[in-house]
Amino acid sequence: MILFDSDYTEGAHPSILKLLSETNMEQTCGYGEDEYCEKAARRLKELCAAPDADVHFITGGTQTNLTLITAALRPHQGVISADTGHIAVHESGAIEASGHKVLTLPDDSGKISAQQILRFCEDHYRDETREHMVQPGLVYLSQPTELGTLYSARELADIRSVCDRFGLFLYIDGARCGYGLAAEGADFTLPLLAELCDAFYIGGTKVGALFGEALLILHPALKKDFRYILKQRVGRLAKGRILGLQFLALFSDDTYFRISRHADQLACRLRDALTVCGCPFLIRSDTNQQFPVLPDSVLEKLRQKYGFSYWQRTDETHSAVRFCTSWATREEDVDMLIRDITALLKEA
Amino acid sequence: MILFDSDYTEGAHPSILKLLSETNMEQTCGYGEDEYCEKAARRLKELCAAPDADVHFITGGTQTNLTLITAALRPHQGVISADTGHIAVHESGAIEASGHKVLTLPDDSGKISAQQILRFCEDHYRDETREHMVQPGLVYLSQPTELGTLYSARELADIRSVCDRFGLFLYIDGARCGYGLAAEGADFTLPLLAELCDAFYIGGTKVGALFGEALLILHPALKKDFRYILKQRVGRLAKGRILGLQFLALFSDDTYFRISRHADQLACRLRDALTVCGCPFLIRSDTNQQFPVLPDSVLEKLRQKYGFSYWQRTDETHSAVRFCTSWATREEDVDMLIRDITALLKEA
Amino acid sequence: MILFDSDYTEGAHPSILKLLSETNMEQTCGYGEDEYCEKAARRLKELCAAPDADVHFITGGTQTNLTLITAALRPHQGVISADTGHIAVHESGAIEASGHKVLTLPDDSGKISAQQILRFCEDHYRDETREHMVQPGLVYLSQPTELGTLYSARELADIRSVCDRFGLFLYIDGARCGYGLAAEGADFTLPLLAELCDAFYIGGTKVGALFGEALLILHPALKKDFRYILKQRVGRLAKGRILGLQFLALFSDDTYFRISRHADQLACRLRDALTVCGCPFLIRSDTNQQFPVLPDSVLEKLRQKYGFSYWQRTDETHSAVRFCTSWATREEDVDMLIRDITALLKEA
Amino acid sequence: MILFDSDYTEGAHPSILKLLSETNMEQTCGYGEDEYCEKAARRLKELCAAPDADVHFITGGTQTNLTLITAALRPHQGVISADTGHIAVHESGAIEASGHKVLTLPDDSGKISAQQILRFCEDHYRDETREHMVQPGLVYLSQPTELGTLYSARELADIRSVCDRFGLFLYIDGARCGYGLAAEGADFTLPLLAELCDAFYIGGTKVGALFGEALLILHPALKKDFRYILKQRVGRLAKGRILGLQFLALFSDDTYFRISRHADQLACRLRDALTVCGCPFLIRSDTNQQFPVLPDSVLEKLRQKYGFSYWQRTDETHSAVRFCTSWATREEDVDMLIRDITALLKEA
Repeated sequence: MILFDSDYTEGAHPSILKLLSETNMEQTCGYGEDEYCEKAARRLKELCAAPDADVHFITGGTQTNLTLITAALRPHQGVISADTGHIAVHESGAIEASGHKVLTLPDDSGKISAQQILRFCEDHYRDETREHMVQPGLVYLSQPTELGTLYSARELADIRSVCDRFGLFLYIDGARCGYGLAAEGADFTLPLLAELCDAFYIGGTKVGALFGEALLILHPALKKDFRYILKQRVGRLAKGRILGLQFLALFSDDTYFRISRHADQLACRLRDALTVCGCPFLIRSDTNQQFPVLPDSVLEKLRQKYGFSYWQRTDETHSAVRFCTSWATREEDVDMLIRDITALLKEA
Repeated sequence: MILFDSDYTEGAHPSILKLLSETNMEQTCGYGEDEYCEKAARRLKELCAAPDADVHFITGGTQTNLTLITAALRPHQGVISADTGHIAVHESGAIEASGHKVLTLPDDSGKISAQQILRFCEDHYRDETREHMVQPGLVYLSQPTELGTLYSARELADIRSVCDRFGLFLYIDGARCGYGLAAEGADFTLPLLAELCDAFYIGGTKVGALFGEALLILHPALKKDFRYILKQRVGRLAKGRILGLQFLALFSDDTYFRISRHADQLACRLRDALTVCGCPFLIRSDTNQQFPVLPDSVLEKLRQKYGFSYWQRTDETHSAVRFCTSWATREEDVDMLIRDITALLKEA
Repeated sequence: MILFDSDYTEGAHPSILKLLSETNMEQTCGYGEDEYCEKAARRLKELCAAPDADVHFITGGTQTNLTLITAALRPHQGVISADTGHIAVHESGAIEASGHKVLTLPDDSGKISAQQILRFCEDHYRDETREHMVQPGLVYLSQPTELGTLYSARELADIRSVCDRFGLFLYIDGARCGYGLAAEGADFTLPLLAELCDAFYIGGTKVGALFGEALLILHPALKKDFRYILKQRVGRLAKGRILGLQFLALFSDDTYFRISRHADQLACRLRDALTVCGCPFLIRSDTNQQFPVLPDSVLEKLRQKYGFSYWQRTDETHSAVRFCTSWATREEDVDMLIRDITALLKEA
Repeated sequence: MILFDSDYTEGAHPSILKLLSETNMEQTCGYGEDEYCEKAARRLKELCAAPDADVHFITGGTQTNLTLITAALRPHQGVISADTGHIAVHESGAIEASGHKVLTLPDDSGKISAQQILRFCEDHYRDETREHMVQPGLVYLSQPTELGTLYSARELADIRSVCDRFGLFLYIDGARCGYGLAAEGADFTLPLLAELCDAFYIGGTKVGALFGEALLILHPALKKDFRYILKQRVGRLAKGRILGLQFLALFSDDTYFRISRHADQLACRLRDALTVCGCPFLIRSDTNQQFPVLPDSVLEKLRQKYGFSYWQRTDETHSAVRFCTSWATREEDVDMLIRDITALLKEA
């Protein structure tokens, strides 16, 4: 079986294990206050052109989302998200468990627009019973989205404007940040994220790390006492240096960007090859997730050899599925997959 | 100005004030453990043919919903509700503040169906990633709904069946219970609610009380330690007898049913008169809330003399509004309202 | 049986029922935005010499404490309280249920001192692992305390200084505020509370109202969006005017102060008479709660005729109990109680 | 500098890094449902003689405590803990943030007794106002305690009896479980923990892992849907196998027990050597944490060469400090430390 189920089917990029081994017997203090974390933080701030950012290394994406959102909202506030947003769907109600409603807007290919957010906020503040409703306090975006799509620099700037108008924080979930930055045609950059967002994170778990995310906080109000909240929301690691070391490895020698590019290129190769065969896609993606629509009969046969995620039924005989690539995906496996699908489609 | 904004624009039914005055100097113990609460509880259990029910008198509807739902759910569970449900819209996120997601289904005239709930649960349990999602734990219905509509006995029984199949509690918000029971054509009864529900409440605030709701708990698992949780969720009143006394007054001499009928009849008189004039309604209601669709020009003039709630725009020149009647509504005011609207419609 | 169990054994001061009856058929808007609430708020602001205060009328004390504390704290913060504080003992964990730890300090006759708070905060900020601990965010005091004692103006000012030094909010629970203001020798005033506190409430439930408390918010940061949070924490009443009307009645003709004085005087009469008989007290109180230490044999006999609260065992044959007086306590009942205890003590 | 600050100053036991490297390129499914986790779970169940236990591998101790306690308690319940318990002191209010009060009992050398728990529960259920208080729902013990002490098998069995009597869950935090099992004179075993507890965890983070704990759930009510709650409380790792692999490594070739013994022996060597010099200890410990009481002048000099934790002042010129050993502690470092302290004590 060859797995394309997710971008976390293997361990870690070898440079990470190497660095962990080399430093293994060194003694450091705990909870991310060691020199490796400091060094990794410095490197990320440089890359983001954000010398004043606070950087926190956190064990996982759900923790990062939960902790930042909790730190940002007052009790009566909620977070605006696409209805396909990770926090709205796949975190078992972690946001609600921390007391806040996720205010979902219908997505367009995984994205929401400045216009939608504007209308939602206008409606809220115009409503005479608004004090009986949840007040929007923060906008959550995923870049790339859960459907592999990307916000353009322009779209992000427009959303920032609406946030400014209604006093909303802007936070970006960059679980797959690398795959977005490396995508062909992407026009956003790390410094742009640092300029527009109040906070965002650069994902490790899905981009080559054993685990771990790097959160950058730009807004001063969110910086204050964040480590208290992070401990409370169980995002701090005793041997915190393990997180710093992983980001040091990923952000040495262009590794993070190189492995992201690798994954994107293989994903797009799959996309382009299937498109040639006439296979439609649920959505146009330039990143490491691809959502072809295939006949159920083809899928059944494919499943004997490959792992992938069922996404949704599109008509009585077809379904959309998801294939993920990653730093660990082998070119020959993608080529074999293409050959197999192409052949099955011909048969079908 | 004559207000039709809500069913709580006046004080309390006079029989309540009378009873409060008569008993004012008596000494009783607190927190609802006095003899008046006991007597009122006994009467409600008789009316509901539910001798084993636990009855709790609670200060308001949001408290009642919040406390019952909190007591019923485990941390990973959410509550299924129509997207128009009170808990989903107008409780400022009280359910989320207690840690639980409201799992909304699109409403049909304020109602959700057994079929929708079935499909939602099937989808949940079929999903391989369900442990990353909120598990449905309870179904919340309003009877009558926020749009004045009613579930039939059959619809309720069907929903109960789905609840049984998926281990869901069934809870009914009866804030306007009286107006439902008194409605022409309504085929549900208090004993039926007691038979089908795990818990439900009989509303006082919107049906003649100063404030207060009577919660009946049928399911043993929900009875255990409920008063602890009620205190924690601030629903217990120090001078608890005030709640018992109000329900005693309301459920003497058929008062609760009589005043509900009064309100329904006046609401339907308004409905029928406007219908004759060709005025459409957002929704067909037999209860004390009516939602006529009127020209904006008519509404502008009406507003100078009457209070009512704006509901929603229906086209460029028309809007739906809400008129509420109650125990306190005067026949002559409704007749005047009818005459005024009729005249304005003719002019328009 | 004559009950001295609590200060809420009867209904409401008659002037309240009278005002409710007189205004019963008037129509007003809901949720405390009516003219009666506005008028009552104005009166309280005048009495407190706090023209810029926000006044909210809330259904009960636990709601008031919970909502204010929730609105004031960030997620990692806790509230400092005496270990005898109402929020620490008798609210079923309502503060914890809203996510915050109660940081208790050992009480001295129900009170904590500026010195204790200072030491606690210094210890916290000196501790290298403080980010793994709950940060103090607010000081909660009861005035009078749960043991009937009072903070002097000087003690309150000292506590305010410590709060300023560590960025703590100061909040006072005035459930029995009237009994404190009316106490002989009390040197604090409503304007002083308004000057020193960030928020405090003037209790109604225990001082003659059917129910309800008046919260005054002084600090701008706590004012913002408070009504959203109040709705969420279920402290808003649909027929909100009932709360405003009660405070209007209580604060007309000096009623609130007069009935508080009445209660204090009867309580002190009991205290002084028992002291003459050589009966010790758990604590010296000038307010409406008295805690005599009596032989268990005496208590057993007293219980056949009077209700009162068991407090704690003081030695093998004696226990402290609590007697409460209120606006409704009759002089002749206190005199009879004194005679009975005196006689029983002689026998014993 | 040689650090004795904690048991997590180095990376991981080399066998762990080796196993991670060997399996790095294998593809597995995520979230702990892979074969390595399954294999590790099987091994732990064997060692605990608990074939029906559910085993969950969780990223850290605070997560494990938080999630288990959250899963076990109803909203009105709290957790009984020593006032020195980790959840009471050093988790930044994580338990309160999940809505539950920590009901602290005064510790005796880090431990609480069956007798104390019994008295606490009796007092609770005897109190007439108990519904206004937090109900005890679970007993939390640390074995070894935060002070390095151990409960005997007898003490644990007695506590279990009290739990049975009052319907309390019994949960043991085994963050340093290994050091307890390996301690001289310890008379508890893994099978005994499995027999007496409703749940307990075997710590990895502090006993040689990069991070991670193994939770064993014995009580059926706690097993149900635990993974939903674990995801919600952010304790699930995407690349879950990393946790399984670490426990496989630790529980191969007796590693876990061997390295624990190593740490205990070095800690006791330190203890015995200092005792010979007449140095008193805050507490008698047979595990890897030692709390000598030393002159402040000695500590000042020691600090230039060694890291250790300041614990508490014991008199005007002495303080207790903590030294930790671990799998990574070198014999020669301990010997040097002993020589240095001995010399400094002689000088002093």
